[in-house]
Amino acid sequence: MNNDFFQILANDKKTQARAGVINTAHGKILTPAFVPVGSQATVKSLTPEDLKKIGVQVFFANTYHLYLRPGEEIVDSFGGLHNFMSWDRPLMTDSGGFQVFSLGSGKIKKSKSHLAQKEKESLVKIDYNGVTFQSHLDGSKHYFTPEKSIEIQKKLGADMIIAFDECASFPTTHEYAQTAMARTHRWAIRSLEAFNQIKNQKKQFLYGVIQGSLFDDLRQESAQFISSLAFDGLAVGGVAVGESKKEMAKVLDWVMPILAKNKKIRPVHLLGVGEIDDVFEAVARGVDTMDCVMPTRLGRMGHILVKGRNNPYDINKAIFAKDKSPIGDRCQCSVCCQFSKAYLHHLFRANELLAYRLATYHNLFLMEELFAKIREAIKKGEFLELKKQWLKK
Amino acid sequence: MNNDFFQILANDKKTQARAGVINTAHGKILTPAFVPVGSQATVKSLTPEDLKKIGVQVFFANTYHLYLRPGEEIVDSFGGLHNFMSWDRPLMTDSGGFQVFSLGSGKIKKSKSHLAQKEKESLVKIDYNGVTFQSHLDGSKHYFTPEKSIEIQKKLGADMIIAFDECASFPTTHEYAQTAMARTHRWAIRSLEAFNQIKNQKKQFLYGVIQGSLFDDLRQESAQFISSLAFDGLAVGGVAVGESKKEMAKVLDWVMPILAKNKKIRPVHLLGVGEIDDVFEAVARGVDTMDCVMPTRLGRMGHILVKGRNNPYDINKAIFAKDKSPIGDRCQCSVCCQFSKAYLHHLFRANELLAYRLATYHNLFLMEELFAKIREAIKKGEFLELKKQWLKK
Repeated sequence: MNNDFFQILANDKKTQARAGVINTAHGKILTPAFVPVGSQATVKSLTPEDLKKIGVQVFFANTYHLYLRPGEEIVDSFGGLHNFMSWDRPLMTDSGGFQVFSLGSGKIKKSKSHLAQKEKESLVKIDYNGVTFQSHLDGSKHYFTPEKSIEIQKKLGADMIIAFDECASFPTTHEYAQTAMARTHRWAIRSLEAFNQIKNQKKQFLYGVIQGSLFDDLRQESAQFISSLAFDGLAVGGVAVGESKKEMAKVLDWVMPILAKNKKIRPVHLLGVGEIDDVFEAVARGVDTMDCVMPTRLGRMGHILVKGRNNPYDINKAIFAKDKSPIGDRCQCSVCCQFSKAYLHHLFRANELLAYRLATYHNLFLMEELFAKIREAIKKGEFLELKKQWLKK
Repeated sequence: MNNDFFQILANDKKTQARAGVINTAHGKILTPAFVPVGSQATVKSLTPEDLKKIGVQVFFANTYHLYLRPGEEIVDSFGGLHNFMSWDRPLMTDSGGFQVFSLGSGKIKKSKSHLAQKEKESLVKIDYNGVTFQSHLDGSKHYFTPEKSIEIQKKLGADMIIAFDECASFPTTHEYAQTAMARTHRWAIRSLEAFNQIKNQKKQFLYGVIQGSLFDDLRQESAQFISSLAFDGLAVGGVAVGESKKEMAKVLDWVMPILAKNKKIRPVHLLGVGEIDDVFEAVARGVDTMDCVMPTRLGRMGHILVKGRNNPYDINKAIFAKDKSPIGDRCQCSVCCQFSKAYLHHLFRANELLAYRLATYHNLFLMEELFAKIREAIKKGEFLELKKQWLKK
């Protein structure tokens, strides 16, 4: 526990859940922590001031998006993302790998459709060294390597950054998953080397990514290998790409015991997971942080998260047109203190910009409240009771 | 000056500009005051809290929009707009007339286009008693009369409401303008009667509307007639529909001297005007309040108002991609204190929701600051100096 970056403060007795603290140059993150997503250097519709009021400790920006627009050079000229977007708390960026393999493959907005179709197959070309992909914005060609990804992330300057990995699509064969994993491992070493070579004024921490699709032997091998390297943190990748909740739990059941055996205490981040029931399953297995677009994306659709329930309700439904009750149930957020379901329903029906903002604010507030309760419950040894209570409906 | 609703606090010596105070059940409005527009019971992208921080004293909601969605009955079930949208300061609504005659004529969203074309001619039917029009949302037919407009506005519950009028499109003939004016005058009397007959718990003030297109004899006749009635306030209508800045000034030159001669001291509202140079022209002629979508609509387009300039600049332009300077020039608003031109440029390029919010906030802040300076200048006898200074660029 004599680690500057991460300390464990409490362990649950009945599960692997743990409460801890991550220390960065931009402040502490109490864990387990939710990491909202602000792909393009903004958590959609909210200001940094809102995020602080909500209690957001850290958020996640996407290297792929920011590399394409505005470009890492412009962000670097501001001294990094924190200054660029006026956020002085911790930040994470991903490696760009996930978007390169998904967004960068066949979703060209501005190309003519027959051209896009013709080129679709060749949009992402993986070689030993890196990946060639096309921008989803204008179809322009780009090449990412582990070194390139780390170089961009150094310029973006997030506190926690991620090694370049290949996230194989799902389902895939054992053979392909093995190849992709082996590549991820080679790229992990190269990412680490690049991370140590590029010197700048920023204090950053590097996470390695565990892959291996849904194959137990590969996931175990990957957990063993990645945790043997000198990463500051460990991330579990490729869990959300088309896999079900049960499969996510399985992957964590293969991976987490291996990470737990490693002598070095490091925070574990779960990539792209964040539905309420997933949160409890992941935390119970020892996950410390997780990012997800879910609460913000659902909010913009008018799907409202409510305390004690796994599934959101849809404020667009006609039954809410006259409903004077607050948006959330017993929620103390500034949206619920001011506005009714009927008003939010009206704003969504009228496609008003304020609709997206209010729903996003409330959903994130609920997530932060949930994680605060989880941290408290772990310390009190009541984690399973909280889970039971929250998921009862 | 012994009027509960409106008092004049200072008169400029060189112009007709005057500083005053409007007293409502929801607080005072210091005049001259800008009245931002929140058509659908929301100033687009902003919360009531934002509006207060900006210094907005009063805003304008549209009867036509709120009648169609969510409907005045739902708003009434909340006790009116203030409660519905959680805004406890003064509010204005219009009569619905302007939208009925513009939006309600031929812009059917959901109808099939050939049907819409076929019916276009007959979408707005004016008779002695009122107007038949079709909803721009679903093509449904509706009928507005002066009584109906007042009944809706009583339910919406704004502090200042407006008599039902016909706003003739521009250009028009003297003959048609005279007919429309005569109708507006008859409807003014009926609006007043309906206003006095419908009793509710709300303390509301009724404005009569002066019409007459661009004909001096009609405008003068209308000013004479409307100001002879027992309205609480007077509004100058139909100035912004396709008319130029010079023509606006001409209309005010015909109308305002007549209103000034009337013994009853009443606030004068100018409907739908609010570009910076228009503001100075209108205030110089004695206008007390004016509403306009300009600063908010321009903001959502990325057109940024700057202190001391009449025209906004376009943040979308490539020259701002690397610009670290604040959005406004010497602006103290919370947006300018935190964010650079480059960041706002990025948000607009990326179509991020935060873009519209930040630009709207800044533009409204600038308008409120301008009006605060105007009020101060009138009191100090420096109104013309301020005008010169602000419009010099």
